[in-house]
Amino acid sequence: MKFHQLVIKPLKETPAGADTINHQLLVQGGFVRQLMAGVYIYLPLGRKVLDKIREIVREEMDGIGGKEIYMPALHPSANWKKTGGWDNIDVLFKIKSRTGKDYALGQSHEEVVTPLAKEMIKSYKDLPLAVYQIQWKYRDELRAKSGILRGKEFEMKDMYSFHDTEEDFEQFYEQAKKAYLRIFKRLGLTAKVTEASGGSFTDKISFEFMVLTDAGEDDILYCPKCDFCINTEIATQKENDNCPHCKTQLKVGRASEAGNVFDLGQKFAKDFELTYQNKEGQKKHPIMGCYGIGITRAMGIIVEKNHDERGIIWPKSVAPFVTQLINIESLENAQKTYDALLENNIETLWDDRDESPGVKFKDADLIGCPVRLVVSAKTGDKIEWKQRNSEKIELLDLAEVIARLK
Amino acid sequence: MKFHQLVIKPLKETPAGADTINHQLLVQGGFVRQLMAGVYIYLPLGRKVLDKIREIVREEMDGIGGKEIYMPALHPSANWKKTGGWDNIDVLFKIKSRTGKDYALGQSHEEVVTPLAKEMIKSYKDLPLAVYQIQWKYRDELRAKSGILRGKEFEMKDMYSFHDTEEDFEQFYEQAKKAYLRIFKRLGLTAKVTEASGGSFTDKISFEFMVLTDAGEDDILYCPKCDFCINTEIATQKENDNCPHCKTQLKVGRASEAGNVFDLGQKFAKDFELTYQNKEGQKKHPIMGCYGIGITRAMGIIVEKNHDERGIIWPKSVAPFVTQLINIESLENAQKTYDALLENNIETLWDDRDESPGVKFKDADLIGCPVRLVVSAKTGDKIEWKQRNSEKIELLDLAEVIARLK
Repeated sequence: MKFHQLVIKPLKETPAGADTINHQLLVQGGFVRQLMAGVYIYLPLGRKVLDKIREIVREEMDGIGGKEIYMPALHPSANWKKTGGWDNIDVLFKIKSRTGKDYALGQSHEEVVTPLAKEMIKSYKDLPLAVYQIQWKYRDELRAKSGILRGKEFEMKDMYSFHDTEEDFEQFYEQAKKAYLRIFKRLGLTAKVTEASGGSFTDKISFEFMVLTDAGEDDILYCPKCDFCINTEIATQKENDNCPHCKTQLKVGRASEAGNVFDLGQKFAKDFELTYQNKEGQKKHPIMGCYGIGITRAMGIIVEKNHDERGIIWPKSVAPFVTQLINIESLENAQKTYDALLENNIETLWDDRDESPGVKFKDADLIGCPVRLVVSAKTGDKIEWKQRNSEKIELLDLAEVIARLK
Repeated sequence: MKFHQLVIKPLKETPAGADTINHQLLVQGGFVRQLMAGVYIYLPLGRKVLDKIREIVREEMDGIGGKEIYMPALHPSANWKKTGGWDNIDVLFKIKSRTGKDYALGQSHEEVVTPLAKEMIKSYKDLPLAVYQIQWKYRDELRAKSGILRGKEFEMKDMYSFHDTEEDFEQFYEQAKKAYLRIFKRLGLTAKVTEASGGSFTDKISFEFMVLTDAGEDDILYCPKCDFCINTEIATQKENDNCPHCKTQLKVGRASEAGNVFDLGQKFAKDFELTYQNKEGQKKHPIMGCYGIGITRAMGIIVEKNHDERGIIWPKSVAPFVTQLINIESLENAQKTYDALLENNIETLWDDRDESPGVKFKDADLIGCPVRLVVSAKTGDKIEWKQRNSEKIELLDLAEVIARLK
């Protein structure tokens, strides 16, 4: 893609009113624009990042047998009244149609997926079953803030699973947990899994996948050595206490919830009279689990965790482009390089603007593609190679550049 | 994909209350479920079709230089008050937040894209510019009906273009028209383009791309021989009159609007004070055009136009799978065939259920993949090949099947 196709150019100055790094860098780099508090427009650069995150999440959900569907955002109020959500969930957006009908905007989809499951599940042979979607959610947040970390409109992957027994749910949860950890790893994030709220695995499970970042909203107590991690709200230990697993001194850190898992038990199955016949021929309500990952939030967290004073440093897996090509004059040579990169399916952003090298270098650092390539009179028939996360500069020929980027 | 992964099996009976073919066949085949009037859930089969339609539309919009972005559905009321839409558009869903703030749900996005364009357009050098998105829209329809043809929640591709002059808009419109006709052709549809409302090209343009179908909502007067076509509402001619272009007798037919183009003039640019400097250094409002294609509606129209009494007949370009493989026992042979098809990247739905051949054949016709393959004791080491739109049955070896499907 050439630079002018980005539609909106990077800003020279830090945008006013940005309370977090992700807001500041994503706006300044031209990835997003704020429409109002908690609601964002995704520009071409931002869309590309979202697409990559979605694809990673999709692959891993498909990998554990999740079936992708798409549920709408506009829900009949009756479904929410049935579960009590209509009166009890304060972030639920409510709409009255011009004929007086009441609708809710989906802030989660148990109220839609459970009645749908009545058609999918008749017998224990239909279990376990897991369906998921990647879809925009709406929440009437009082304090939408922290850029795209906490929005009124945000994209989420939500999966719902149905099980014959608690043991089966626990088995599936273990698979899902592994898939989640693979997802975060592929996104370049290290997530800590908080202990279950009840502290024991046989109680109702509620796990949170937390990424340490100052822009987060939770405080976690974690062990720097082993896997122990718990939300301070429910922790019985405090900072500097010994880890209950390995005796290392515990630390407290600010963290953002990148994903979660809830054991929904039989609540929704009971509310919607979802039953099946078990092996013994008895009518039973399945156990339900629910698994969320914020797609837009993940994008925000990635920026919080991968930047320096000059801009974003995207992990290759979610970078809008693998490389940003800069020409200092040498237009013909740059065109040849650009064509060769595209022919080799290497996603390239070519800054073909008539700007000074200084401006182009500054914007490349701000946008943060993993590799910067420079073609100039000085580089001759070679190409200057610099990785965003290193200061080392090399002169390579085109074949070597392509070989490294493929 | 194996059959049980569809989550919901095809229904034996026609669903109650289906007022149109697309509603009936899409529900019966397991592509969609109705959540409420005008709001649908897309199941795995339906999602796959939507994905293919989106990709065709995306390719053609990219091809004429459209830049893809993503605008939110939740809008501040101020934007809609500025254009008069808040009080004048009766299908606009309005929401009051718990703190008393008013929001609108996007039924179109001029109110978001125009203020955004203030950052994109400073000079005539930034023009023409076209941005588009593929996104869900919300309309408070009094009579949502005709299956997925007319919904309260539906997916649309909406493109917005900005121009220095009316002539430039007309040039771009010609390109967009060609792209639209290519899209409909790739979707297996024949669209007729209605004449401009004003009847003349230099008036405000409003073109509609109409597909003849009984499930449509408009009556068009068209020439069976040439391109002449006009909405009966604004036609000065009537049925059996002579075509003003070629003198053939005109016909009247029911049609569905698959796409449209509007000349928005300078209205929105004036409302949002969007200006740029033209070549002569004067401050001007750009001319705006808007181009819609209903993604979910297109899916419905395709079904209306491509079915028989047994089910849907998907065009290959948007079929959920290229082929449906059926085994009559012969499980091992079917597995070998399935593996070979997947290895060759041929999208295959394998009906591996323990059902009678009759049920499997009936469901294959209902779902409507372009090619049905049968493996049985009778076919030996050959495979039975039958196209959905033909009665001819052939016995082929695996290599020939793969060669034909690639």
